[in-house]
Amino acid sequence: MMEADMENGRSYQERPRTFSTVRSKSSVPLAFRLLMRINPRALIILSLLVFSGVLYVGASTSPIVVFVFCICTLSLFFSLYLTKWVLAKDEGPPEMSEISDAIRDGAEGFFRTQYGTISKMAFILAFVILGIYLFRTTTPQQEASGLGRATLAYITVASFLLGALCSGIAGFVGMWVSVRANVRVSSAARRSAREALQIAVRAGGFSAIVVVCMAVFGVAILYSTFYVWLGVDSPGSMKVTDLPLLLVGYGFGASFVALFAQLGGGIYTKAADVGADLVGKVEQGIPEDDPRNPAVIADLVGDNVGDCAARGADLFESIAAEIISAMILGGTMAQRCKIEDPSGFILFPLVVHSFDLVVSSVGILSIRGTRDSVLISPIEDPMAIMQKGYSVTIMLAVLTFGASTRWLLYTEQAPSAWLNFALCGLVGIITAYAFVWISKYYTDYKHEPVRLLALSSSTGHGTNIIAGVSLGMESTALPVLVISVAIISAYWLGQTSGLVDESGNPTGGLFGTAVATMGMLSTAGYVLTMDMFGPIADNAGGIVEMSQQPESVREITDVLDAVGNTTKATTKGFAIGSAALASFLLFSAYMDEVASFAQLPFKEVDIAVPEIFVGGLLGSMLIFLFSAWACSAVGKTAQEVVNEVRRQFIERPGIMDYKEKPDYGRCVAIVASASLREMIKPGALAIISPMAVGVVFRILGHSTGQPLLGAKVVASLLMFATVAGILMALFLNTAGGAWDNAKKYIETGALGGKGSESHKAAVTGDTVGDPFKDTAGPSLHVLIKMLATITLVMAPIFL
Amino acid sequence: MMEADMENGRSYQERPRTFSTVRSKSSVPLAFRLLMRINPRALIILSLLVFSGVLYVGASTSPIVVFVFCICTLSLFFSLYLTKWVLAKDEGPPEMSEISDAIRDGAEGFFRTQYGTISKMAFILAFVILGIYLFRTTTPQQEASGLGRATLAYITVASFLLGALCSGIAGFVGMWVSVRANVRVSSAARRSAREALQIAVRAGGFSAIVVVCMAVFGVAILYSTFYVWLGVDSPGSMKVTDLPLLLVGYGFGASFVALFAQLGGGIYTKAADVGADLVGKVEQGIPEDDPRNPAVIADLVGDNVGDCAARGADLFESIAAEIISAMILGGTMAQRCKIEDPSGFILFPLVVHSFDLVVSSVGILSIRGTRDSVLISPIEDPMAIMQKGYSVTIMLAVLTFGASTRWLLYTEQAPSAWLNFALCGLVGIITAYAFVWISKYYTDYKHEPVRLLALSSSTGHGTNIIAGVSLGMESTALPVLVISVAIISAYWLGQTSGLVDESGNPTGGLFGTAVATMGMLSTAGYVLTMDMFGPIADNAGGIVEMSQQPESVREITDVLDAVGNTTKATTKGFAIGSAALASFLLFSAYMDEVASFAQLPFKEVDIAVPEIFVGGLLGSMLIFLFSAWACSAVGKTAQEVVNEVRRQFIERPGIMDYKEKPDYGRCVAIVASASLREMIKPGALAIISPMAVGVVFRILGHSTGQPLLGAKVVASLLMFATVAGILMALFLNTAGGAWDNAKKYIETGALGGKGSESHKAAVTGDTVGDPFKDTAGPSLHVLIKMLATITLVMAPIFL
Repeated sequence: MMEADMENGRSYQERPRTFSTVRSKSSVPLAFRLLMRINPRALIILSLLVFSGVLYVGASTSPIVVFVFCICTLSLFFSLYLTKWVLAKDEGPPEMSEISDAIRDGAEGFFRTQYGTISKMAFILAFVILGIYLFRTTTPQQEASGLGRATLAYITVASFLLGALCSGIAGFVGMWVSVRANVRVSSAARRSAREALQIAVRAGGFSAIVVVCMAVFGVAILYSTFYVWLGVDSPGSMKVTDLPLLLVGYGFGASFVALFAQLGGGIYTKAADVGADLVGKVEQGIPEDDPRNPAVIADLVGDNVGDCAARGADLFESIAAEIISAMILGGTMAQRCKIEDPSGFILFPLVVHSFDLVVSSVGILSIRGTRDSVLISPIEDPMAIMQKGYSVTIMLAVLTFGASTRWLLYTEQAPSAWLNFALCGLVGIITAYAFVWISKYYTDYKHEPVRLLALSSSTGHGTNIIAGVSLGMESTALPVLVISVAIISAYWLGQTSGLVDESGNPTGGLFGTAVATMGMLSTAGYVLTMDMFGPIADNAGGIVEMSQQPESVREITDVLDAVGNTTKATTKGFAIGSAALASFLLFSAYMDEVASFAQLPFKEVDIAVPEIFVGGLLGSMLIFLFSAWACSAVGKTAQEVVNEVRRQFIERPGIMDYKEKPDYGRCVAIVASASLREMIKPGALAIISPMAVGVVFRILGHSTGQPLLGAKVVASLLMFATVAGILMALFLNTAGGAWDNAKKYIETGALGGKGSESHKAAVTGDTVGDPFKDTAGPSLHVLIKMLATITLVMAPIFL
Repeated sequence: MMEADMENGRSYQERPRTFSTVRSKSSVPLAFRLLMRINPRALIILSLLVFSGVLYVGASTSPIVVFVFCICTLSLFFSLYLTKWVLAKDEGPPEMSEISDAIRDGAEGFFRTQYGTISKMAFILAFVILGIYLFRTTTPQQEASGLGRATLAYITVASFLLGALCSGIAGFVGMWVSVRANVRVSSAARRSAREALQIAVRAGGFSAIVVVCMAVFGVAILYSTFYVWLGVDSPGSMKVTDLPLLLVGYGFGASFVALFAQLGGGIYTKAADVGADLVGKVEQGIPEDDPRNPAVIADLVGDNVGDCAARGADLFESIAAEIISAMILGGTMAQRCKIEDPSGFILFPLVVHSFDLVVSSVGILSIRGTRDSVLISPIEDPMAIMQKGYSVTIMLAVLTFGASTRWLLYTEQAPSAWLNFALCGLVGIITAYAFVWISKYYTDYKHEPVRLLALSSSTGHGTNIIAGVSLGMESTALPVLVISVAIISAYWLGQTSGLVDESGNPTGGLFGTAVATMGMLSTAGYVLTMDMFGPIADNAGGIVEMSQQPESVREITDVLDAVGNTTKATTKGFAIGSAALASFLLFSAYMDEVASFAQLPFKEVDIAVPEIFVGGLLGSMLIFLFSAWACSAVGKTAQEVVNEVRRQFIERPGIMDYKEKPDYGRCVAIVASASLREMIKPGALAIISPMAVGVVFRILGHSTGQPLLGAKVVASLLMFATVAGILMALFLNTAGGAWDNAKKYIETGALGGKGSESHKAAVTGDTVGDPFKDTAGPSLHVLIKMLATITLVMAPIFL
């Protein structure tokens, strides 16, 4: 043991360098700093000019785009209002802001280093893409529409980089507001539960609105720029229905950044959490977030970089991928059905998300704090308040969704088609609701499963783990049934919509599924707000605990924290449901794309062919290996933290009596450098393996006379990985959430309460669940969509 | 707690009834008892008559069948010799045989009850099959060959029941010999390690030979009976190449019984083990198999019913399924290539397994005990001895396999085809070897992974579990790569064999994969021997511990037990590899079968169709749900055991000082009734869900105008379930084995040794691993093959 410590001690000597950058104050990205140096008036004029330019381009494209631009701009102003409102709140006494400063420094420092690494990788990948596209063969169709190799290459690379940049900003915004809101929530909790809740919700709302806005704005700007630049729909150039396929680079860029953000952030947050808990709670018996624990600041930093930044990037990417895939399918369908003005079908997703911005804003505003400006006890259940806001949002979403279908999807060819699609949207909304309900059932301790899990803790650590694993695996059944029903019913609503192609075959099926996905995501803004609320409340609780506030204040933040745990768990269900649907859509887009480039029919992926079956085997294996590496990264890093915390407790015995201050910075540095190191392996696996499989089977296909073999094997890899990924993510998320809440249930005093043997077993379960639900699980959401976009962008090398 | 105990106490009052039957002495099945009442001479004459009848039928079919019959008969005599040899050994002092009697009573009692339940279910299912086949439509082809509805129905039901019966006998034989050999091994361990090893190997060898023999004999008898009865190949009747399809009922019967045997036995053994360990080892700190532990007899019984009986049924079913699928593919290929005498291709698998019997017998005999009839210290590593035997077997298998391909697969149409197929066999043998090596690498503590796992125990229960889960998931990668290479290379060796159909297309691919599977299983007899060795050694160790033998004797059985753990883990890798290949083959057979019955082309399963994609989603989900229920069954039952053991320790404080005898019987009764109850849910899920999905999508397909939709969705369900099942089984088996050995590694004194905190964490891991590796994992092997056979037999209801 001593020897191991010595060894660790030596290697730590080299780490402070990382840490010193972590503490550096200049943590605002360069672009922002440059902007800030410009005269404010000049800035306003500049933005007005940019905006009118954008508006002009939009107006030359379609009035629908102008509508989208206007709503996005208004929403951005609304988000500015929310920030101003949040930042105007007080930061509380100095002991609070001191802690909050440490958290902010840690988070912003890690963010800088992490995104520095990610952007380097993104540039390398951009060059790879450029190379591939410059050497690919273009289709006669593209040649005819004036889309040369070089143009296509620059378009793809530019969208990739823009997607990556926007994803990065989405992550930054989430973290930026959360490290500022946390202390304000703590401070407000000294006055009123309701005010604290409102601050947390509005801070979460700010980043949610920005994220959704950026996804919509980004796609809309790219779309209209390409439209004007390429002179779409003018004679001799490309058709508008082919335009959406050019946007896939944006989706890939977004998912690429989101994957590494989620991996790095997820490893960071859970390694710190597990490490802190194992020594603090289990060995030393001190409470969570106790200031004596040397890893506590790292843990609080983790909430921001893992949950806020990463989830922002994740949802941004979900929305972007879903918008793009729906636009592709809308375009394909409009072309097949020879619809006169296809723009409604193509731009529909942008409008749905514009309305999403509006209804989510209303939902966020519906949570008001004015009623109890006087201090009252937190009798009102904050979950109920959030749920009420959600109900308002959903009702409005149903109305606006119906209106959008009537506005954009009405066509004289099939006058009742819009009604069918409105029903598809309803299917999506119901699916989202069912997902949220199912994950609540399996992870909330009000229901049977978590209670049984808690009971199994009373017979020991082992039975608790067995029960948790079983619970997680069992919980995959209902969501799969729901998603199956949703896919099939939306597909058939689309098929029977009356839209037919030239030979009279119904063609609306896939677009129906796409509309259902949009319905599912039609309240994304509010859902993301609820999600962002969680880590802010968690952090506020940590600050309250560390600054040793009175019991009554802790109670308020504890309640908020518990609500945050539930909303976090439920939004994960939501995220995985939408990922499943979006992947299925991108899969169809992939087949279309391959067929059009290869000039060969690509209608089916037949798993009875040995090579294609092997592709499926490899795809499923990819999910297992990726999850293994994500979990073991947390385990390994946590072990380093455990050793460091143990070392500090041994070397500074005064810590336990509050006589010595623990060295928080060293834990932050250890976790930061370890999580940057550990995110590379699983991330690289996810990027490289589909490309490698595609190329290997392309060669095998050439030598055995099977055309398109590479593309087909990749398709099968993609589908099997999607299916396995959905199941694995459901398993990991639910098991993790259930363990967490089983522990919380015992902490309410059940089965012996805190400190009992049952509680110890439950803490073990919680520890195991941490990397499941906050590292591997959410990374799988992103992985699934990243695989779908990477295959689309990299398709040329499989052919 | 008290209340719960009271409640349990009451329900236990009702249980002794189960227990009293468990203790009953008349535990020999009725059929055996009837046989025993007949005069021995009459019996000999009767069997001679039966044998000559069988031989006559065989001779009318093909000389190859006569060869197979002769080898099987000789092997049965050899197995009789092995039993006689084992039973002639002494049973040791009375304190040993007393314990062994208790184990035997428990095992035979549970076997009777369990197989009673299983046989009832089998009869119900037989009626369902009969009904389905009596109301199905027959194909014009079948009508032409005189195969009416009723004939087909009776043939299918008869093969199903015969398969079920043989599977039951396979399980019975495994358990029968193991409960008799265990005490003889214990007794021999007092004299010589080598003798103990030899007894355990020969006892295992006896049941292995019987199991393989029965699989080969059963299929061969059915084949030749149908051949003679249906007048195959005579003008106007069916062709010999269609005959193998009639045998699938046999495979289904075998896998049906194996599934429930594995589930019930697996739940039994691990619930008892986990329950005993959690209170005994973890709470009371008494060693494993200590006579003071009230659950110790139940634990020892579990080894017999779980590992011996269930693994016997599992391997029997593997071999049967693989023989039948290879016969089907051989027949189909011979027909397509218009090979003059197809019998060589059809009967090839029977010959391979006949040689398997021969080479495995040599391998078993190569492990001799004579050299050290004088007591010597157990310096020689028993693993090395077993490995040497395996090497002998494998070398002989390569030779006989090559000879068999030359003998049976030589055809003038493609003179070098046999060489290609011999290479396919070699691919299979290498794959088997690679699987064994990989699972050894991940589960043996001589290698890095388990050492790292042990190290992670030093930071607590939580990190140990995280590391184990990651290890298990990571360990899926290499086997998947190996199996992928094996499938593709065997397929291409087959395709390039020179065998072409009428239009000149190469057709040998799938048969090549089939031959590789046979290669993999060509040493099944010896592998099963090594596997059966494990629980016998484990039991012997338990008897030695309970009868409080001196330390030197325990050391010998401990070494044997450790070797048994390794062989058990490696044969699981072997089982899952062959299951993967066999399923892929049965999948092709299924497509052929559906196409021939529906008179519609069924060439592909296209996962881009939403319904078929949903089928895949459901198939993968089935695996997760099944694993969840299998694990939670163990968890729940173990909790009952824990409560009972705790109760006994509280109510009879004298147990700990050896003053009072614990009530072993009550634990046996609790585990027996609970495992019978708990095996139903996952078993029913596995049987019902593919049928339900097929019927639902058949109806949906009819109403939406998609022919064969039901059959296609089931095909996709089958493939996705196979892929997910392989991965999940690899994960569960490896994680469980690694946890077990990490604990053993710490017990050798590493990281603090027994009793340290690391050891406690490692015991938690071992507990979690128990249901993984011995209940859910092996049940998945069987499930995969059961799904493949059930879809074949039930195909009529999907159309």
